[in-house]
Amino acid sequence: MSKFIVSPKEGVPFVSVQAMAKMIHDYGVEQCITDLVDALEQDYLRWDQFEKSSRFASHSKDGVIELMPVSDGEMFACKYVNGHPINTTRNLQTVAAMGILSDVENGYPILLTEMCILTALRTAATSAMLAKHCAPKGVTKLALIGNGAQSEFQALGMKAIMGISEVRLYDIDPAASQKTADNLADSGLNIIVCRTLEEAVLSAEIITTCTADKTNATILRDDIITKGVYINAIGGDCPGKTELDSNILMRADHVIVEFEPQTRIEGEIQNLSSDFPVTEFHRILKGEVQARKSADDLVVFDGVGFASEDFTALVFLRDLIKKQGGYEILDLIPQQADPKNLYSVVKGHSKNHSLVTNEAESVAMS
Amino acid sequence: MSKFIVSPKEGVPFVSVQAMAKMIHDYGVEQCITDLVDALEQDYLRWDQFEKSSRFASHSKDGVIELMPVSDGEMFACKYVNGHPINTTRNLQTVAAMGILSDVENGYPILLTEMCILTALRTAATSAMLAKHCAPKGVTKLALIGNGAQSEFQALGMKAIMGISEVRLYDIDPAASQKTADNLADSGLNIIVCRTLEEAVLSAEIITTCTADKTNATILRDDIITKGVYINAIGGDCPGKTELDSNILMRADHVIVEFEPQTRIEGEIQNLSSDFPVTEFHRILKGEVQARKSADDLVVFDGVGFASEDFTALVFLRDLIKKQGGYEILDLIPQQADPKNLYSVVKGHSKNHSLVTNEAESVAMS
Repeated sequence: MSKFIVSPKEGVPFVSVQAMAKMIHDYGVEQCITDLVDALEQDYLRWDQFEKSSRFASHSKDGVIELMPVSDGEMFACKYVNGHPINTTRNLQTVAAMGILSDVENGYPILLTEMCILTALRTAATSAMLAKHCAPKGVTKLALIGNGAQSEFQALGMKAIMGISEVRLYDIDPAASQKTADNLADSGLNIIVCRTLEEAVLSAEIITTCTADKTNATILRDDIITKGVYINAIGGDCPGKTELDSNILMRADHVIVEFEPQTRIEGEIQNLSSDFPVTEFHRILKGEVQARKSADDLVVFDGVGFASEDFTALVFLRDLIKKQGGYEILDLIPQQADPKNLYSVVKGHSKNHSLVTNEAESVAMS
Repeated sequence: MSKFIVSPKEGVPFVSVQAMAKMIHDYGVEQCITDLVDALEQDYLRWDQFEKSSRFASHSKDGVIELMPVSDGEMFACKYVNGHPINTTRNLQTVAAMGILSDVENGYPILLTEMCILTALRTAATSAMLAKHCAPKGVTKLALIGNGAQSEFQALGMKAIMGISEVRLYDIDPAASQKTADNLADSGLNIIVCRTLEEAVLSAEIITTCTADKTNATILRDDIITKGVYINAIGGDCPGKTELDSNILMRADHVIVEFEPQTRIEGEIQNLSSDFPVTEFHRILKGEVQARKSADDLVVFDGVGFASEDFTALVFLRDLIKKQGGYEILDLIPQQADPKNLYSVVKGHSKNHSLVTNEAESVAMS
């Protein structure tokens, strides 16, 4: 499939929140996550082809702003994403993200998109993919600790890929659990809102922690974690932001990570020695390492989110809008006749022709 | 001045190429560069307040894709920029850039913009500011070696800030020189198109090299550089891409850089030992170090472009559009009532209300 949505001379395709929401609604969240899992597996199988680096992080008092670049040699992807747990008290989202996909051959952007919704989908798909290869088979009960923006996507991903039928919700904010329960009322899942964390994890075979506080919290205590459980720990994702009692990691039979250098900085294992043994997921997918040896194994996915997952999601979106549209064209790159004559764009200031921009400006400038 | 153009709940202001071209045309290129020099000086004076890092670079066969993040603790800026000299043979620009400015307090983007034109302006302003503080006083003749996309902006910047009256053009592509001469015909500058580099540098007091080839070229030979000349070398800006005979640097009385760690990797000094003495410009601006001690001094600015200059340009643009508009509103961040209820945006897929997006989608989707 050609990497181009439109020619680089036509402008840069942009997917707005509204367009993304409509597209995903029509496509179906579970179908979208299912297809993303396939795409993620294909890209994790070619792990070695990606130019990888730990994400850039600019930390401030209440949050972090991150850049997540990655390239497979043909396309370059970068996500701009923040993490400000305090934002919900300001009636703003914890995470605001945007993504760019570009052509390595000429450096031109080929896609610009909202990435709040897309990130929730790719994170749910990554969690489901890890569970598919690292959790016990035939599980039916999921405990969902932290019922914020990610929770419904996480629940539907585990339903679609793992066949989860019961979801046990817990959040220190009961309204968040109720919100998640209401959103999933018609999902076909048996939703149980729990008043305590102990009640939520009771009998759960998969425990997902997706809390947001930027502290070294102990969301899961060691004493409530039984043998054979699979822990999908995705809320701890930057220095000083973790969720698990370190004893859980110490006694785990296997701790699985995405890109080890980044997880050493950002993951649950930041609280352990730098030689604490972990396995990068791609090795499990390739069959080089077994995720679990017995039904009693305690396996933990220390997920922080890696740039290649956003690359996969951006290419997935690229393919989707190539088929069905739903994008705008942004007038982002000058298109003058002589590429060396950038000055003519200012001197003439009417050389660029972008239908959407003309439309838009007539609105913004009126 | 408030850092917000519009409230974070209203969407993200976007400046298109067409809007930028009109704004700069109406504002005047020389006035714009003059104001940018003032703004750059203010920010270079508070150099220590910026969180600085060398830019991220992803190199490929024909070019490079870079991310340039920087923060002053209140706002975060990042420029996406590529460098593909081969692009002109594809009728594409060597550089395609976009910029994002965001609010450190909540991580939300507050401005998204084209940055090809803005980068040409900030680079011309940076060159003019360095010349203002490091070149001899009373100079009138500029040699401009390399007459591509940056050349007119460079000439007008040196005219506005240094009082340059004569510009001597040379490029291996005569059509590029003619293009620059035509664009500057009504600038009030005396433009001389030269057939050889020697002819161009003859009698020039400032020599600007802004060539694009990604090679360790020797655009300027040591034997044609006379005493007292100021060299503004801005074309060499990544590993394997330099313009000067190393002997020029060796015999220079002073080599000035922006952010030393980045210039060691990307600048002309990449060809010299890692302890070759250089001075960061902010020290000269603060009066800690003298740029030149005698009229005979050979001073070289080894410019590569630093993220704080883009920060300054983005804040300048932010202030400009706050006064006069000229931006669109992008539907980039979900705006649902409950920030924890991201899922509702997909379930409802009609929660976002962006006038421009509605306009745009009615076009893109029709």
